[in-house]
Amino acid sequence: MDRPTSTPSPATGPRSFRLVLEYDGRDFEGWQVQAGARSARTVQGVLAEALASIGCPDAKIQAAGRTDTGVHAEGQIASVEFERALEARVLLRALNARLPQDVAVVEVREVEPGWHATDAARAKLYRYRIWNGAVRSPLRAGRFAWIQEPLAVGRMREAAAVFVGTHDFSALRAAGSSARTSVRTIRTIELTGETGHQIVVDVLGEGFLRHMVRNLAGTLIEVGRGRFEPGDAPRILASLDRSQAGPTAPAHGLTLMRVWDGVGD
Amino acid sequence: MDRPTSTPSPATGPRSFRLVLEYDGRDFEGWQVQAGARSARTVQGVLAEALASIGCPDAKIQAAGRTDTGVHAEGQIASVEFERALEARVLLRALNARLPQDVAVVEVREVEPGWHATDAARAKLYRYRIWNGAVRSPLRAGRFAWIQEPLAVGRMREAAAVFVGTHDFSALRAAGSSARTSVRTIRTIELTGETGHQIVVDVLGEGFLRHMVRNLAGTLIEVGRGRFEPGDAPRILASLDRSQAGPTAPAHGLTLMRVWDGVGD
Repeated sequence: MDRPTSTPSPATGPRSFRLVLEYDGRDFEGWQVQAGARSARTVQGVLAEALASIGCPDAKIQAAGRTDTGVHAEGQIASVEFERALEARVLLRALNARLPQDVAVVEVREVEPGWHATDAARAKLYRYRIWNGAVRSPLRAGRFAWIQEPLAVGRMREAAAVFVGTHDFSALRAAGSSARTSVRTIRTIELTGETGHQIVVDVLGEGFLRHMVRNLAGTLIEVGRGRFEPGDAPRILASLDRSQAGPTAPAHGLTLMRVWDGVGD
Repeated sequence: MDRPTSTPSPATGPRSFRLVLEYDGRDFEGWQVQAGARSARTVQGVLAEALASIGCPDAKIQAAGRTDTGVHAEGQIASVEFERALEARVLLRALNARLPQDVAVVEVREVEPGWHATDAARAKLYRYRIWNGAVRSPLRAGRFAWIQEPLAVGRMREAAAVFVGTHDFSALRAAGSSARTSVRTIRTIELTGETGHQIVVDVLGEGFLRHMVRNLAGTLIEVGRGRFEPGDAPRILASLDRSQAGPTAPAHGLTLMRVWDGVGD
């Protein structure tokens, strides 16, 4: 066998690939194909269509992070599994030729059969972007959440530090979330930017509950506005009560930047 | 009179304002309303409509830089002149409430009657953005020109230096341009970024010929690709012949970042 892949794989049987994906989430109803809502345009759906059009109609597709409606990705990871023999570089080119303009496959590697992006993800970096100008910004529309009132970045940073570590994040958990446990670990939260300009919140964690980053961003925004004090943050976290935290910040401010899964690190 | 403006102005007669504008150029056929093409959607056109809707139907509107179809602006300057008494901050709010989502007035100041943005502009900063990845970037679409072949940034920088200074820029001048002279002064050209990633070309000049920045970017891209040598740049510039330079780089990579006009500096 002289296929140029790093992982030996059988000549027949399932083949697995790890895809890095970039997408503009504006026109997608999130990552996941929803049972009973086949007409919804999802990233997984357009990827499945592209795979079907190259002879892999029954590919199994999994993502590291199931991004919500409107959320973007610079480095989403997906695993795809199918029976057809294809080289990684051929798959990359074939998919990009068929995918719509708002999604692209940035990288493809063949991996061991059975490798799943969801299980492999050890850490993820999410970025929440805020445009804190007095006037809306046409060039930042759809990528930044616009908060008109001046935000006190230092106070937001102080509050953010409270959420770093391993905690029960029930206070930041979306209603109806079915995760078994609300305990998650946030490794770092970095806030850059200044009042009246762009503010970027980078959240690096080992796993996230549904809406957790947007609920965190919404809570930090309330601190920045002065509706919460930084000193309220420990109480909010300890309450385990979603109604104590700030509102869910808009989806279009959020981007899944990177996933660490032991393969591309 | 107790209006809070810095420039005293008569109670009646023309009033002049200096506007800073931001726009996403994608859905505009450039800045300028074109005689005989009234149906074309232009930035000047939507601004005129917004002014008309607040009782200033005959406002005179001028821009510092007449950006082309698809070109963006973060800091375009326009002067508007009309007969109605309005405070600057009222004008800002009224216009933003009426302008479409892809254009915003970032700042308004009242200026002396007769002040014109075109005449006042002493220098402009244009930014040309290149996405030099192997795969198209959905999150950079419409804002970056995609060049797939790896560009040698050091060679581009070497060639760029040749164009700095006061020169006859006929080699970078659009066919059909009606400017009286092709002599212009470029103060600085800065290239940042690296091969395979984002490359940003910042061009600061005292004035530009039509398509001059895009023709410069197109020429530097040819150098980066290896179709021209950096050593070809002096010959291209001295030829005064448009056909010697590179092609016009795509409009959507270009943004008018800032104008210096002595008012907001």
